[in-house]
Parts: sequence; structure tokens; C-alpha cells
Amino acid sequence: MIRIGIYGYGNLGRGVERAIEKNSDTELVGVFTRRDPASVKTVSGANVYSASQAKEFTDKIDVMILCGGSATDLDTQTPEVASLFHVVDSYDTHAKIPQHFAEVDKAAKESGHIAVISCGWDPGMFSLARVYSQAILPDGSDYTFWGKGVSQGHSDAIRRIEGVLDARQYTIPVEEALEAVRNGKNPTLSTREKHTRECFVVAKEGADKARIEKEIKEMPNYFSDYDTTVHFISMEELRRDHATLPHGGFVFRTGTTSENNHHVIEYALKLDSNPEFTGSVLVAVARAAYRQQAKGQSGARTILDLAPSELSPLSPEELRAHML
Amino acid sequence: MIRIGIYGYGNLGRGVERAIEKNSDTELVGVFTRRDPASVKTVSGANVYSASQAKEFTDKIDVMILCGGSATDLDTQTPEVASLFHVVDSYDTHAKIPQHFAEVDKAAKESGHIAVISCGWDPGMFSLARVYSQAILPDGSDYTFWGKGVSQGHSDAIRRIEGVLDARQYTIPVEEALEAVRNGKNPTLSTREKHTRECFVVAKEGADKARIEKEIKEMPNYFSDYDTTVHFISMEELRRDHATLPHGGFVFRTGTTSENNHHVIEYALKLDSNPEFTGSVLVAVARAAYRQQAKGQSGARTILDLAPSELSPLSPEELRAHML
Repeated sequence: MIRIGIYGYGNLGRGVERAIEKNSDTELVGVFTRRDPASVKTVSGANVYSASQAKEFTDKIDVMILCGGSATDLDTQTPEVASLFHVVDSYDTHAKIPQHFAEVDKAAKESGHIAVISCGWDPGMFSLARVYSQAILPDGSDYTFWGKGVSQGHSDAIRRIEGVLDARQYTIPVEEALEAVRNGKNPTLSTREKHTRECFVVAKEGADKARIEKEIKEMPNYFSDYDTTVHFISMEELRRDHATLPHGGFVFRTGTTSENNHHVIEYALKLDSNPEFTGSVLVAVARAAYRQQAKGQSGARTILDLAPSELSPLSPEELRAHML
Repeated sequence: MIRIGIYGYGNLGRGVERAIEKNSDTELVGVFTRRDPASVKTVSGANVYSASQAKEFTDKIDVMILCGGSATDLDTQTPEVASLFHVVDSYDTHAKIPQHFAEVDKAAKESGHIAVISCGWDPGMFSLARVYSQAILPDGSDYTFWGKGVSQGHSDAIRRIEGVLDARQYTIPVEEALEAVRNGKNPTLSTREKHTRECFVVAKEGADKARIEKEIKEMPNYFSDYDTTVHFISMEELRRDHATLPHGGFVFRTGTTSENNHHVIEYALKLDSNPEFTGSVLVAVARAAYRQQAKGQSGARTILDLAPSELSPLSPEELRAHML
């Protein structure tokens, strides 16, 4: 059994907890939180400890899965915790990954641990799709589409507008663009041609809805480059119809191997729950981290550095007999 | 530069030759054939040698890519050539892969070479899709569909019928079955419900077409479990409309992470040329073999044992900065 700890217990932490239940070679030792442990109730009934107690568990936990947020937590948490445990995180601030890798690598090497960073679906499974397909079709083009799914960052941006009580934003790929890529037409697509944005907003009573809609649609970086639709709904409707966190997307590589021969590689995800799927990736990667440490390795890794067989519960013999 | 040799020069050998042209870190040293080298003209103008001369090239070639057929050649060729070179093959007799692996492993370990077997798209990229998605969604179902594409085995089976001059068989996935899986309906599908078979047949003059059609449709293993359509066409039409070797397919994993949350992972290939795409996979894998031997490793591998980063021409730093 691979003994796992969860460090940080929000949506992602609960996703990891669910995934551990689905993997018969993993067990959850405990959840570590910066909140008062008595105030946290886990889905599975697992024990909850204060984050400061984690250091007492170094011989009881094989891999600690970090479930904090990239924006606020993981920059400092992953190097800290990697000095105590083998760790896996889902760090997703793409631009800062090289710096995060360097800091985690230093902490992990100094303490003799394995640390796998930036695992999830993007970065993660989508990164794998991009690397494999570029290696196979070097003469070609990449396309990534996200959605249909909830963007937390865009939902938060709407919530910061005066007069907004709550909001949910869906990123939606444009069907015609998807079809053009899928059919090998190799289109050049603007930001606006790739995705639309649909917003469900709960406004305060008496708020100026026209102003809110205008502020959303004109918000630079987040909305101004997109065709955006805004719907005002009640808090009851938001809770009833928009409580879940679906997501997904598409990674394409289209390429040429000779004058007349074109190829399309498509990797697509349709996810009812972004945090539960991400948690499932983290647990599979924790298995790989466990296997790498068993070989005496240390330092930072990404999912690109792990052999696929290391993520699987099956033995190399079983994989060759049944999965090739 | 990774110096590559091609051992066997049919459709797949030409596919590898095209792929080497597309990869700036690879070069083709020569083609090795069991035919009279003077009778073989390469697409790129590469030198052609007798297979028996290969042993003179052990210090001129880094990786030999075996391009013979699984049915007749690779069982014996891969272990033989692995005793002289680092090798990559596309062995695709699924049931005999464990035995092939063991024989190649022995030869490769004794001579200190790396040998990567069974690389292409199935086995190969489809195997990767299956292993990753099963590791992430352990509670779920797998579906593989092939086509639309030419099945060489089924085309050959038709050619063996009396009165048939030539034939081309297309395997076609049933659109309704694909859609049901894609929409997470988790259907139970019979062989007949997953694929149809379409045959284009050139009959000898005066041959009994009704008998040929009946023999095709009732052929056990190959056609009797499928809805099969037979078209009789002229040799000119066959050459004009069915000269290429397209293929592709779909690997799905549908799975559950908690009571209400279902997920669909889809990996799809649409290939104008089966041999050119397979050749492109083999060249990317040759890069990984080259890197593994540079670390002093030896023995047999499959694509499941190679880290994705090893297949990419980019450095680990470049991958982290641009591909995650």
C-alpha cells in the first residue's frame, strides 16, 4: 500500500480523497490543514491534523499530495513540504513553472525526496498530448481548446465588479473552429474565433445591470477579446444550476509527413468535475513518485519525466501482455 | 545527429525515410535489404546495402529501425539485429509480444544494446492512451475503435478467394456507437455494433461474383461477425481510388470518480498514411533509444517504459518552459 497524505483540503483535496478510494494500492493516512482541524470534516472520515503536525508523519506517509492553490500556496508550500516528504503538486502558473521547478528541485535533492510538480490535466495530460504529438509530427501545428467548463479565474474576476454577489463563467470552444481543426484545414484562428465566454451573474438588488454587463464585456485580458454573453439569474438559480465544476478541452496536432499525407491527432477530455479528475491524476502520479523513490532517486520531476508504466498499478509484465 | 539505419524497405521503410527528413536531429546512413541492393531505389537517394553488410556498420549507425513485417520477419530479425545495434521495431502480433520481448531482451542485454519493441500507433500510441487513462480512471471502461482505414490483413484474406484479382478492405467504426461512448453512455457493444467492413474487389473476367461476395461475407473471424458491404470494381478504379493506406481510430476511457461525476477521455488519430505515421513514431522512439543508450542502459523496452521527454527533440528546460 502506498500511504498518502493530503496537504490542504478544499475542492482538490476532496478530489484526491475520492481518487484514493478508487485505487486499491493507495491509502489515505490523513488530511493536513492550516485551519482548526476540529472544524474540518472529511468526506471519507479520514483523520484531520494541523499542517504543523505534518513533520510528525515522515515515517507514516510515503507521498504527500499538495492540494493548495498555485496563486497563493504552492510557491512556498511545495519546497517546504518536499524537504520532509516525497510530494506531488498541481502547480499551474505556466509562466513560473521553471522557477518553481528549480526551487522544488533544490529542496527535494537536499533532503533526498522525489517531487513531481505541475500534474493535472493542463498542465498535465494536455502537456503529455502536446509533447508526444509534436515528437511524432515535427512538421505541424498545435491547437488547444478549453471547455466547455467553469473558469475559476474568470468567475472571480466578475465577482470583483461592484454590485455582483456571485458569478459563474463558462469557457466554450467554438464548434466551427474545432471542426476546421479536426478536419485538417489548419486554420489560423484569432482568440475570438476559438472560444466564447458565457457568464451567469447574481446582482445585488437595485444594482445597475447594464453597467455590470458592460464592465464584464470590456474587461481587458479576461473578456474584451471574446464574444461574451451575460445572463442575470437569481442566487437560487446559481446554486441549483451551476453548483458543479465541469471542464475539459481538446489538444490537437495536425501535421504532414510527405507532400500529400496529412494527419490529425486529437486528445479530448470531458470532465464532470475538474477537481476530482485533477485529483485522480495526482494519485496516479503519486504512484510513480513512490516507485521512483524506491529506486533511490531524488529531485524534481514533471509528468514528462515519468514513464507511463510508472503511473499504472499493473506490472510491466501485465502491461505488455494486456495493454500493448 | 542521431545516425539511423533502415532494415527492410517496403511501405514502412519509406515511411521511416520520410520521417528522418522531417527531424533535424536525425540522419539516414543507409537502407539494408535482403533483395539485390541494385534493384532498390530509395525515395531520398539514400545508399542501399545488402542486409548481410549491416554488421560492417556497427560504428556508423546509432539506431537501426526494423521495418520488416511482424508475421514473417521480426520474430527472428529483431533479436538478431539487436545483437549488433540499438534497435526499434513495430512488432504488432499482440498475443506474442511477451515472448518477443523476452527474446529481444536476452539478445539486447547480452550485447549491451537498447531495443524498443512494438512501437507504432496500435500497439504504440493507442497503448499509451490506454495505460494513462486506466491509471487515472481505475473505475471505468475501455473502448477502442479502428478506422476508417485499410486493413491489410482483411484485404489479403479477400485476395485468397478464388476468382479475386485484387481487393481493398476498409474497417469503419459505427458512428452511433462512437457517439454513445463519447457521450458517456457506457454502452455494451457487440462486434457487429462497433465496426462495419467495406470491400472493393476486382474479380477475374467471368468469375462468379455472387459466390465471391458470399465467401467474403461468411468468412469466419474476418467477416462473418460484421455487416459487410462488397463492391466489384475494375482494376483501374482500384488503382485510381484506393491506392493509399489511410487509417486511424479512437481510444476511449470512460470512468467515474464519485457517484455523480463521470469523465470521458478520447484519443483519436486520423491518418492519411498508416506507414508514414508509423514511421514517424519509430523515429521519435529511436531518439529515446539513443538517449537511453547514452546513459549506459541496455535491454528491451516498450514505449510504456520511455519517459515522454525522451521522445522529444526539446531539452527538459525547453519542455518545462514551453510545453507544460
